[in-house]
Amino acid sequence: MAEASRPLVTLMTDFGTEDGNVGVMKGVILGINPDAHMVDITHDIPPQSVAAAAYLLGRTYMHFPAHTIHLVVVDPGVGSDRRPIAAATSRGSFVAPDNGVLTYVLDHLHGVGEEMDLVHLDDDAYWLSKVSNVFHGRDIFAPVAAHLSLGVPLDTLGTPIDDPVRLPPPILERRPGTVIGEVMHVDHFGNLLTNIPSSYLYPLGDAITTKVVQTEIGGLTTTFAHGRTGQPIAYIDSSDHLAVAVVNGSAGDVLCCQRGERVEVAAND
Amino acid sequence: MAEASRPLVTLMTDFGTEDGNVGVMKGVILGINPDAHMVDITHDIPPQSVAAAAYLLGRTYMHFPAHTIHLVVVDPGVGSDRRPIAAATSRGSFVAPDNGVLTYVLDHLHGVGEEMDLVHLDDDAYWLSKVSNVFHGRDIFAPVAAHLSLGVPLDTLGTPIDDPVRLPPPILERRPGTVIGEVMHVDHFGNLLTNIPSSYLYPLGDAITTKVVQTEIGGLTTTFAHGRTGQPIAYIDSSDHLAVAVVNGSAGDVLCCQRGERVEVAAND
Amino acid sequence: MAEASRPLVTLMTDFGTEDGNVGVMKGVILGINPDAHMVDITHDIPPQSVAAAAYLLGRTYMHFPAHTIHLVVVDPGVGSDRRPIAAATSRGSFVAPDNGVLTYVLDHLHGVGEEMDLVHLDDDAYWLSKVSNVFHGRDIFAPVAAHLSLGVPLDTLGTPIDDPVRLPPPILERRPGTVIGEVMHVDHFGNLLTNIPSSYLYPLGDAITTKVVQTEIGGLTTTFAHGRTGQPIAYIDSSDHLAVAVVNGSAGDVLCCQRGERVEVAAND
Repeated sequence: MAEASRPLVTLMTDFGTEDGNVGVMKGVILGINPDAHMVDITHDIPPQSVAAAAYLLGRTYMHFPAHTIHLVVVDPGVGSDRRPIAAATSRGSFVAPDNGVLTYVLDHLHGVGEEMDLVHLDDDAYWLSKVSNVFHGRDIFAPVAAHLSLGVPLDTLGTPIDDPVRLPPPILERRPGTVIGEVMHVDHFGNLLTNIPSSYLYPLGDAITTKVVQTEIGGLTTTFAHGRTGQPIAYIDSSDHLAVAVVNGSAGDVLCCQRGERVEVAAND
Repeated sequence: MAEASRPLVTLMTDFGTEDGNVGVMKGVILGINPDAHMVDITHDIPPQSVAAAAYLLGRTYMHFPAHTIHLVVVDPGVGSDRRPIAAATSRGSFVAPDNGVLTYVLDHLHGVGEEMDLVHLDDDAYWLSKVSNVFHGRDIFAPVAAHLSLGVPLDTLGTPIDDPVRLPPPILERRPGTVIGEVMHVDHFGNLLTNIPSSYLYPLGDAITTKVVQTEIGGLTTTFAHGRTGQPIAYIDSSDHLAVAVVNGSAGDVLCCQRGERVEVAAND
Repeated sequence: MAEASRPLVTLMTDFGTEDGNVGVMKGVILGINPDAHMVDITHDIPPQSVAAAAYLLGRTYMHFPAHTIHLVVVDPGVGSDRRPIAAATSRGSFVAPDNGVLTYVLDHLHGVGEEMDLVHLDDDAYWLSKVSNVFHGRDIFAPVAAHLSLGVPLDTLGTPIDDPVRLPPPILERRPGTVIGEVMHVDHFGNLLTNIPSSYLYPLGDAITTKVVQTEIGGLTTTFAHGRTGQPIAYIDSSDHLAVAVVNGSAGDVLCCQRGERVEVAAND
């Protein structure tokens, strides 16, 4: 963590915004580190959807400065014996329940050969003095993130581990002339974001067909601005993966597609 | 207010986020105190629901540093003769319309013997120069909060009062073997949060039944993670009060329960 | 821009909050200017509604300090040849796609005789090194706003222009005894906000009738707090324009009214 930079903490939860619980976590952080600067990533993760949070964290974290601390609280196991954990990497620190929410971050960093340190947060000296069974975001995760932002070293906060929980990998297969993947997220505009990297598509050539649910889409479009209203298009999203949109509409609605749907791209004969 | 700390202002409104009015209040605050740091508690209070705001403020304020200024604008009486008020306490300052929204804060602080000072905000020197009939959040409350955050003393901002409007107390009765309360809030997950303190339950013993609407729930559960999907459970929430959830579901939906519903807890015979 | 003030950037988009894209833009800004302070105006602009964003920007910008940089990303033409632009004025700076979203700001400032400078953002030295076809908010607009917030002069960022795209003006007609306008926005409370300035109404006298859809409303009401539940009322909104509400209800729902509806105000005979 760069000591010279203003401490930066991001927050991602499934709390919504209507109950004030995100505000409470920020109040706790500011009570420990009054100089913390906080940025919301999202609080609209579907309730208890660890997979959705893991995907969005994996898409977003690399756009923040390397000293950023990412606090993720999607925690269906709160109050059980699931571990609270933290990770320090060259691309940011992470504080979260050990339920797989860090899967894609750890995979990505491991894939590019980055070192990382993980700890089981088992030193309650860095938690609030009273810990409820139902709100570890307030009582454990926010205080730990605040202490990290003050410069407390990771290994002071807990015991090293090397076996974080990982989500089962989504489908991603390359066969001759074909790539099969799945819809990871339906975004605010109804666009279908997949796990198929653009680099998997280029070997298929320019003449390809994308199949999702009952719809077949020819080729790749480079911008939403071309194409007629209601037309389904395939394109490369802002994270360099295949995505499907409906021009001036919602692909999720029009194609009746949800997270997890199979997507197949084939070179035309 | 601690002079050394960065000025901290929280905001709670029923404005939603789609019209930009929360942003406008922040712009007004920053125009008066460029160093103000602002944290949203929520802007999703149901329109004009003073009771909902009062409950959420009472749950959240104590998690913020003691020098925090809490700005609450749920104001069905804007433009009428309802008073704008402010309060200074050892646990934070408050700026709000005098409509009962501070009820639980004042009750709580009074209950623990804390001193507090209240003023009717009647000195327009601390308001915007032009005051509309319909947006006192922008024209009166935000500017007053900004001036408080600059260190202007409370008694400079208005005339002392000791008769703030209070909401009628919710039902809360203790009878031999029984406690009766009500649902104060249905949260983002559909959990039913009641006004029955955990300390009222312990004298009933371990064998208790919670009744809400048509549902009877045996005992208290310590974590959501135990229990089968769809099962209603009673538990102690993060504010040490009785709550009711449905495992992996919404108690509000499943039990057809809204704010104000009666809740009864009885010791089993 | 006042060098002495903390850099202030507002954000207005149609991204919603569920995908983390607003957070990503903030991460990019903080990577370039760690001292930037950011305030959300709204991210709930209806998808691709340039007109809605233009209206809300025109209502809100003047309540922020004059050194504020307003970043607006409602961008149906992303990836096409629509220009990215920026404007510097005495009342704030603006960074946006050139699609008319600055129409009311520029009209307003021009109307009061303010100077302004506009540039086509064509120097990619101030963008991220890799620019996607689908997320210029992250790749172009956020970096440019961050550089502006560091004090980079406007004319360094691109080439001067004087022909920004403007939206067609909404209906606004004054006839003897009558004013005709339209509903510009239906707000969070369901209130209908029009483009008819209060100054256009006063010449009509006190006895007026406002007609919208099938409803006729007599006179102007000074506060929501008077009037019975369900009653439609006409009033002057916080931006000094005619508006229509339903007491303790939603005029949008009750009157079946949307953006663009014709509104007529006539002096009674």
